[in-house]
Amino acid sequence: MPKTARVYVTLKRGVLDPQGSAVARSLHALGYDEVADVRLGKFIEVALREGAAPADEKARLEEMCRKLLANTVIEDFRIEL
Amino acid sequence: MPKTARVYVTLKRGVLDPQGSAVARSLHALGYDEVADVRLGKFIEVALREGAAPADEKARLEEMCRKLLANTVIEDFRIEL
Repeated sequence: MPKTARVYVTLKRGVLDPQGSAVARSLHALGYDEVADVRLGKFIEVALREGAAPADEKARLEEMCRKLLANTVIEDFRIEL
Repeated sequence: MPKTARVYVTLKRGVLDPQGSAVARSLHALGYDEVADVRLGKFIEVALREGAAPADEKARLEEMCRKLLANTVIEDFRIEL
């Protein structure tokens, strides 16, 4: 079974999330008044080839996030290996 | 500080993920050959009002997922409270 890295990409605090606000409003409309706020992010599962993974796996994943998976101007990312 | 629930929405195994495949191809093009596969999902942070949360918090969150946050025909969801 190949190893899977989990990457979480979230909007930085302070960045407006209109999509999240729309979801929050929809939840209120459905009667879920306990919802204070919703923020939408991405959850990315990256399957890594067995054996092929170099020793600096985590560093390379961070590079992938910075280059492609996340927009670091407005987004933060977190990697779980 | 309000409590935050984390919801992970992922495509069910067997459901094609063309967006994930496109990301995997882009990573290969960037030289990350260790990437075997990419699956994209959603990561939703739901802030819950303090005190207002009913005892059956988890059950209500599951209901929100079934009604709005996930398409249970093709997606699975997981809730962390």
